[in-house]
Amino acid sequence: MKKGTFIVIEGIDGSGKTTQVDRLKAFLSERGHRVLITRDPGSTALGEKLREVLLYSRQAIDPVAETMLYAAARAQHVSERIIPALRGDVVVVSDRFFGSMYAYQGWGKGVDRDLLDVVNRHSCRGLIPDAVILLDIDPALSLSRLKRPADRMESEGQEFMQRVRRGYLDMARKSPSLYTVIDASLPVDEIALQIRRMAESCLKTT
Amino acid sequence: MKKGTFIVIEGIDGSGKTTQVDRLKAFLSERGHRVLITRDPGSTALGEKLREVLLYSRQAIDPVAETMLYAAARAQHVSERIIPALRGDVVVVSDRFFGSMYAYQGWGKGVDRDLLDVVNRHSCRGLIPDAVILLDIDPALSLSRLKRPADRMESEGQEFMQRVRRGYLDMARKSPSLYTVIDASLPVDEIALQIRRMAESCLKTT
Repeated sequence: MKKGTFIVIEGIDGSGKTTQVDRLKAFLSERGHRVLITRDPGSTALGEKLREVLLYSRQAIDPVAETMLYAAARAQHVSERIIPALRGDVVVVSDRFFGSMYAYQGWGKGVDRDLLDVVNRHSCRGLIPDAVILLDIDPALSLSRLKRPADRMESEGQEFMQRVRRGYLDMARKSPSLYTVIDASLPVDEIALQIRRMAESCLKTT
Repeated sequence: MKKGTFIVIEGIDGSGKTTQVDRLKAFLSERGHRVLITRDPGSTALGEKLREVLLYSRQAIDPVAETMLYAAARAQHVSERIIPALRGDVVVVSDRFFGSMYAYQGWGKGVDRDLLDVVNRHSCRGLIPDAVILLDIDPALSLSRLKRPADRMESEGQEFMQRVRRGYLDMARKSPSLYTVIDASLPVDEIALQIRRMAESCLKTT
């Protein structure tokens, strides 16, 4: 059923994902591809509402409840936006996807791995990205880069973000055919070039 | 750890749960019990926000996303309200709990049973009610009783509600020590009497 290509950009907060998603979009559009940029959580009416709750509400949220909210946003995102786009031969570039859940809720907050597996399997409908680009960076550097007030996740602090980073690197090590790790402390243009190369080879094979 | 008693009232929309929760509260308070009335989804800031999304938003919600939202509300409800109350020797009476998820999302919408099991186990933290009262009624009768505009679930129609009812009765048949089925077409006072008797015997044994 799937005709399009699904590329995910992952990384801790402040790793430069948003900038690189924009760059990649411009590159792919210039090459004549139809491109859909999405973000997870978000990109649907429900998802954006949940994003607001997850990132900007002031009450403490139970880690299992938080996991379920991210999963709800993802389920809606996949069924309403991503799958229809991929059926229509579009290149979908998502700012975060299920890797974030393993990294943040699993590694960061200790939510049970089996729960994450089951929840992700159902909320993603079996959809696996064609490629995941991990922008890897030391939290000490990335958090200092943030130019806006920290959201709920960013406020968890540097030790939390170190666990999240270790989670990402662990996933990349275990799934080398899925993940491409890029050093996010490099100059923006150099990172964009590496991502373009990766995207090109991915588009050739899918 | 648990010192209190946890009673759940379940049933399809229009089965008279709200009325009976109020009656039971009055009865238990007169008997000198400390009582906490809760509703699921709801009863926390997060839960009430999600209740609003689940019952009154206009967009279609993917069934898996819906399941996750109910689970998120329940996880927050259990950890923030129910468990602390039960530790403090309170009688907690909840308008709906995990039975609703099996009935509505499982039987009503066909969401995978294994997903519901895993999601419920984590969101309830292993908490099982001391007793569940099922107010059983034919949807043809209960839906005609509703005096307010129908919410999202109620708008699913009578055939949907028949499946939900069958789900409830199936659970009650399979867990007779947990469920007490009461004919909700009886007069309100008669139902209240049966619930009081059930609550009294439950309070003696817990």
